[in-house]
Amino acid sequence: MRPEDLPQTVEDYRRAAGAALPPATAAWLNGGAGDEITLRRNEAAFDALPLMPRVLRDGGSGDTSLTLLGTRLDHPILVAPMAWQRLLHPDAERALAAGATAQGARMVLSAQATTPLAEARGAGALCDWFQLYWLGREGTLALARRAADAGYAALMLTVDAPVAGQRPREMRAGFALPPDLSPVNLAGLPRPAAGSFEEVMAAAPRWADLEWLCAAAPLPVLAKGILHPGDAARAVAAGAAGVVVSNHGGRVLDGLPASVEALPAVASALAGRAPVLVDGGIRRGTDVLRALALGADAVMVGRPAAWALAVAGALGVAHVLRLLRDELRIAMAIAGCRSPRDIGPSLIFRQNPPEGCLTASSQAK
Amino acid sequence: MRPEDLPQTVEDYRRAAGAALPPATAAWLNGGAGDEITLRRNEAAFDALPLMPRVLRDGGSGDTSLTLLGTRLDHPILVAPMAWQRLLHPDAERALAAGATAQGARMVLSAQATTPLAEARGAGALCDWFQLYWLGREGTLALARRAADAGYAALMLTVDAPVAGQRPREMRAGFALPPDLSPVNLAGLPRPAAGSFEEVMAAAPRWADLEWLCAAAPLPVLAKGILHPGDAARAVAAGAAGVVVSNHGGRVLDGLPASVEALPAVASALAGRAPVLVDGGIRRGTDVLRALALGADAVMVGRPAAWALAVAGALGVAHVLRLLRDELRIAMAIAGCRSPRDIGPSLIFRQNPPEGCLTASSQAK
Amino acid sequence: MRPEDLPQTVEDYRRAAGAALPPATAAWLNGGAGDEITLRRNEAAFDALPLMPRVLRDGGSGDTSLTLLGTRLDHPILVAPMAWQRLLHPDAERALAAGATAQGARMVLSAQATTPLAEARGAGALCDWFQLYWLGREGTLALARRAADAGYAALMLTVDAPVAGQRPREMRAGFALPPDLSPVNLAGLPRPAAGSFEEVMAAAPRWADLEWLCAAAPLPVLAKGILHPGDAARAVAAGAAGVVVSNHGGRVLDGLPASVEALPAVASALAGRAPVLVDGGIRRGTDVLRALALGADAVMVGRPAAWALAVAGALGVAHVLRLLRDELRIAMAIAGCRSPRDIGPSLIFRQNPPEGCLTASSQAK
Amino acid sequence: MRPEDLPQTVEDYRRAAGAALPPATAAWLNGGAGDEITLRRNEAAFDALPLMPRVLRDGGSGDTSLTLLGTRLDHPILVAPMAWQRLLHPDAERALAAGATAQGARMVLSAQATTPLAEARGAGALCDWFQLYWLGREGTLALARRAADAGYAALMLTVDAPVAGQRPREMRAGFALPPDLSPVNLAGLPRPAAGSFEEVMAAAPRWADLEWLCAAAPLPVLAKGILHPGDAARAVAAGAAGVVVSNHGGRVLDGLPASVEALPAVASALAGRAPVLVDGGIRRGTDVLRALALGADAVMVGRPAAWALAVAGALGVAHVLRLLRDELRIAMAIAGCRSPRDIGPSLIFRQNPPEGCLTASSQAK
Repeated sequence: MRPEDLPQTVEDYRRAAGAALPPATAAWLNGGAGDEITLRRNEAAFDALPLMPRVLRDGGSGDTSLTLLGTRLDHPILVAPMAWQRLLHPDAERALAAGATAQGARMVLSAQATTPLAEARGAGALCDWFQLYWLGREGTLALARRAADAGYAALMLTVDAPVAGQRPREMRAGFALPPDLSPVNLAGLPRPAAGSFEEVMAAAPRWADLEWLCAAAPLPVLAKGILHPGDAARAVAAGAAGVVVSNHGGRVLDGLPASVEALPAVASALAGRAPVLVDGGIRRGTDVLRALALGADAVMVGRPAAWALAVAGALGVAHVLRLLRDELRIAMAIAGCRSPRDIGPSLIFRQNPPEGCLTASSQAK
Repeated sequence: MRPEDLPQTVEDYRRAAGAALPPATAAWLNGGAGDEITLRRNEAAFDALPLMPRVLRDGGSGDTSLTLLGTRLDHPILVAPMAWQRLLHPDAERALAAGATAQGARMVLSAQATTPLAEARGAGALCDWFQLYWLGREGTLALARRAADAGYAALMLTVDAPVAGQRPREMRAGFALPPDLSPVNLAGLPRPAAGSFEEVMAAAPRWADLEWLCAAAPLPVLAKGILHPGDAARAVAAGAAGVVVSNHGGRVLDGLPASVEALPAVASALAGRAPVLVDGGIRRGTDVLRALALGADAVMVGRPAAWALAVAGALGVAHVLRLLRDELRIAMAIAGCRSPRDIGPSLIFRQNPPEGCLTASSQAK
Repeated sequence: MRPEDLPQTVEDYRRAAGAALPPATAAWLNGGAGDEITLRRNEAAFDALPLMPRVLRDGGSGDTSLTLLGTRLDHPILVAPMAWQRLLHPDAERALAAGATAQGARMVLSAQATTPLAEARGAGALCDWFQLYWLGREGTLALARRAADAGYAALMLTVDAPVAGQRPREMRAGFALPPDLSPVNLAGLPRPAAGSFEEVMAAAPRWADLEWLCAAAPLPVLAKGILHPGDAARAVAAGAAGVVVSNHGGRVLDGLPASVEALPAVASALAGRAPVLVDGGIRRGTDVLRALALGADAVMVGRPAAWALAVAGALGVAHVLRLLRDELRIAMAIAGCRSPRDIGPSLIFRQNPPEGCLTASSQAK
Repeated sequence: MRPEDLPQTVEDYRRAAGAALPPATAAWLNGGAGDEITLRRNEAAFDALPLMPRVLRDGGSGDTSLTLLGTRLDHPILVAPMAWQRLLHPDAERALAAGATAQGARMVLSAQATTPLAEARGAGALCDWFQLYWLGREGTLALARRAADAGYAALMLTVDAPVAGQRPREMRAGFALPPDLSPVNLAGLPRPAAGSFEEVMAAAPRWADLEWLCAAAPLPVLAKGILHPGDAARAVAAGAAGVVVSNHGGRVLDGLPASVEALPAVASALAGRAPVLVDGGIRRGTDVLRALALGADAVMVGRPAAWALAVAGALGVAHVLRLLRDELRIAMAIAGCRSPRDIGPSLIFRQNPPEGCLTASSQAK
């Protein structure tokens, strides 16, 4: 696809990906758990947060940079870990890594990536964080060492999915993983616990496990999938280098709050002791701005990058991330924010939205 | 129907039953009183209760069991009493009883069952509670004795329907009870009061009647159809062995609150002095979890079991109950609840949902 | 139309009238001012008021009777004044009067009736109240005397419409009054003020005019069209025998609150010193019950009676009023109200409705 | 178009303009930034503000006049500055000026007008305010002097748009400015800053710039595009002759509050020290009344005038303004407001609207 033929907005990428992918794959990518209330809520919660701009503000020229776990980044938009990217494009995680790096966006490689750790790392210098699931102490540590050996700089432990979610949309569409797809980086490691409720719960990780991992792992560990402020504080006390407020993109348990609804209490509980990231429903530069206003240090975007990957490979990924970064800058300029220091809770206007102003937006999607 | 052809979710059963039943029967089964605001509200109220999960929680392995009026049950999902099940399947209440028992679900036989008490009791060991309407002191006691003689363990007196509801959907669809259908277990007993407003109200049961029945009946009596906390407390003071928070599935008076909206105040008023059950709008394992979080000891499901009965008889009933039980366990696992002891009001996230995130769900149904 | 062919619910009458009337006449009857937000709000406000029923309550047998300005009525449902009923049926106000009287419903004849005062009065004994607009002191008093001479028992002065409303629905449908239609009871009297804003406002009635009329008129005067509690109190202080909380059926100024939203403060301000009536959006027996719970002594229904008149003349009017009365009794029975003494504010359950449960109802209409 | 063929309501003008304009031009005119949430919110916020009318009020005859920056105006409805009116009608800003003046409405000429300052001024005596963007101190002052030389009486500095908004609707429709269209009044002046985020922010005006302009300019300066009360107070402290509460018609940054939502705090912060205007979503006389009730001294309408221009040139503009003025007078009459002195915050009824009463309105548009 030539650059001039690329979709013009993130929403256009969503539509183009829906048209380009096989229906079952699109159902897998776009669907959520249960009746998809949380899936919709992730986006609707941003719609419902109006921004109160300031005008004529003094201060320096525009700046979106930040330091995250010791690394300087141009902007606070990261690519979230996503499984099975080869379903979307033959270049898979390599294209994600290249596109993200081209636009200064850190990428978190999924434990269920279809590309070897080192190969993804080599495809883009900013593909340097790795997400993993609990595989028991031994398995988890072995996987962490693989990531460290491949040059990754941090680990992101997913703590919100002791069992897989049920996603009727993909079930009805007949989605199934192709037999030739496997989590190549997990070869030789134990599989996550399955079986009866009792067995799953007996094998699920506990606070002591997180504490142990933070001490034993060769890299800093962020905890991903936290919504409760008490859990966030406890994770940091256990040694976590940061937390990710997330409901797993609405894919695991339907009925959870939007992640941005849970964000303020988490940010308040941590009070700057460790970085707070958030993902789920971020589709616009204004959503990034809202998340920062409510206490996030950075955000992760998932599906937008996946839509772009499906539509135009690495070029699309770079384009979508550029759109989001540009939208963030435009939003900051109009809202009167010259740098992250100008962004805080007072940027959110507190009033119930009038009925009907949001619904049409949701219906159009 | 072969097991592999069964619908995959409760929602799929709803659709399949709608397609399988004659339109007038479907209107009778799925419709509600008046404009069906309460019918929709029963479901929408669950949608609007987000769950706040906890991660990495310590504790034992997973457990959903409970003791209810002295009986140990594997899980807190009961089958609600429903009239005229022969309209849905030739095996009627026998299939309900067998399917429920197969999945460890207690069943409450309806006073308007189309199957004799003993025959239903024999079809499934967990079909051991019996629901009845007020028929005057003599009639009600006679019916209670029939249930005791047939081996039932408890009675559930419906107190919320002194007159029949008006259901325009079934009226417009031309629904009428077939002439060969009758409440076989009421043979020879007086009919409920009918006639003028004055006559109906004069014959309606009063608190003294409940107190009398609790003392006179050979079995413990639960009061079904209570929404007000003061009424719940008075019922227990009158000797009731438990209460069921219910608006009769939205079938009697339109404009009532959702039963789950009324639940917290009732649970708070009883403070554990007697078990609290709730029915109305429970369609998912997460709905069961929400009800438990808001103070219910157990829940009753009606239409989901009826849809399953219509689609696949006893096998369908067992399947739907299994789906709900599995969904409950998955929800507990992801929410960090290893047993009912971990489930309480703090599991509900208190914030108004953003507009638009729930509507689409309702529209899809 | 034979009785067995009559529509079965008020909603069915609405639909049948929509089909039976010429489109422009239906637009006039069913439309409202402006964008019809108040028109919809009148109905939606009732939908949003859940009823909290009580069970097993002691007390006498059922009773809906009341005394209103000294007259005993079987029930609290009146027929509201409505203009130009000959547009709907050749028997016009005579059919309304006959149908209303047959069901024990007091009727308020409109100043813009197409039937002479005495003729309507003769068609039904309960057609004994008369509504009038301000025509200047001399004109208004002359009209009041005409009503007294024709045997009417009370006057209802409309105070909320100093100018006519703008109703785009009927404008777009090309509605115009037929040339042979005239307000026969106003013959020879001055017309209401028209012309410039300044002229209209100069001629509009003021508090001193109401006080004068209450003293000078040969009959008690109720003030119709009050939403503000201070205005209600002042009207009674000026001598009004009662007030009608009303927004004129949403036909005069769009953007007003629903009348039932304004009711509680008015009832509270009057504290029983004079009867409070309410109209606007009452379509069900449960709506009557809600209005009584919020402080109304009685309600007036307009469009439901008009739909019935259009569909089936006096028989239809009687039928719709019977449906509403029966629905009120059923609602009282199920809500545990044996008489108006059991009906109060605690009958309304205070909680925001979950999103989505009301919308479908509105969309269906 | 003959007068008798004109549309009958503002809404009808909206529809007629949508049919008359090329689709890309209609998308440019009617669209908004991003997902158009703010665009819809501007209108929905008015829908959600119910008016509490008073009856029988004493006082003088009707009056809507006001004094604004020393000029007596018949009514508080102004025409907002709008770019590129030649896209809508060949008579462009001259027709706007003539139509506005014919109905006593002050007009604010846009800096991006397609008509020379003096020519627009000559087409209508009430076209006497001029809107401008920041062009650096030298450029802005030069432009201000051009306006003063052409006989304009005041300047309105837009402070809310340091960068252009992104409007997907017009992008998708392929809208582009025709090459022969240019901002004729800006000839020879520097263009607004463009380029990188850093460059744009470095060139954006600051408080010191506003203070400087207010002192240096030959005309009083109003600040347009303020939503925050602190900014409004600071603007007046900096010498601004008034403020315009505005979100730029939802065209610059999506996600802002409705302007009428931000109005009360701004009016309260200024406490009458300087006039407050508001624009955005005003489509009805009742919207004007609501804005006045919440503290505005006057309102500006944009798109309604543009629709009218597109449909019927100067005649249409005059007609739409007459409709709005008449609607305002009718609304005042029915709400019991004889003059602006009767209009205050107590005119707004404070209660959440019931669900569903507003949605249908939005959907119809």
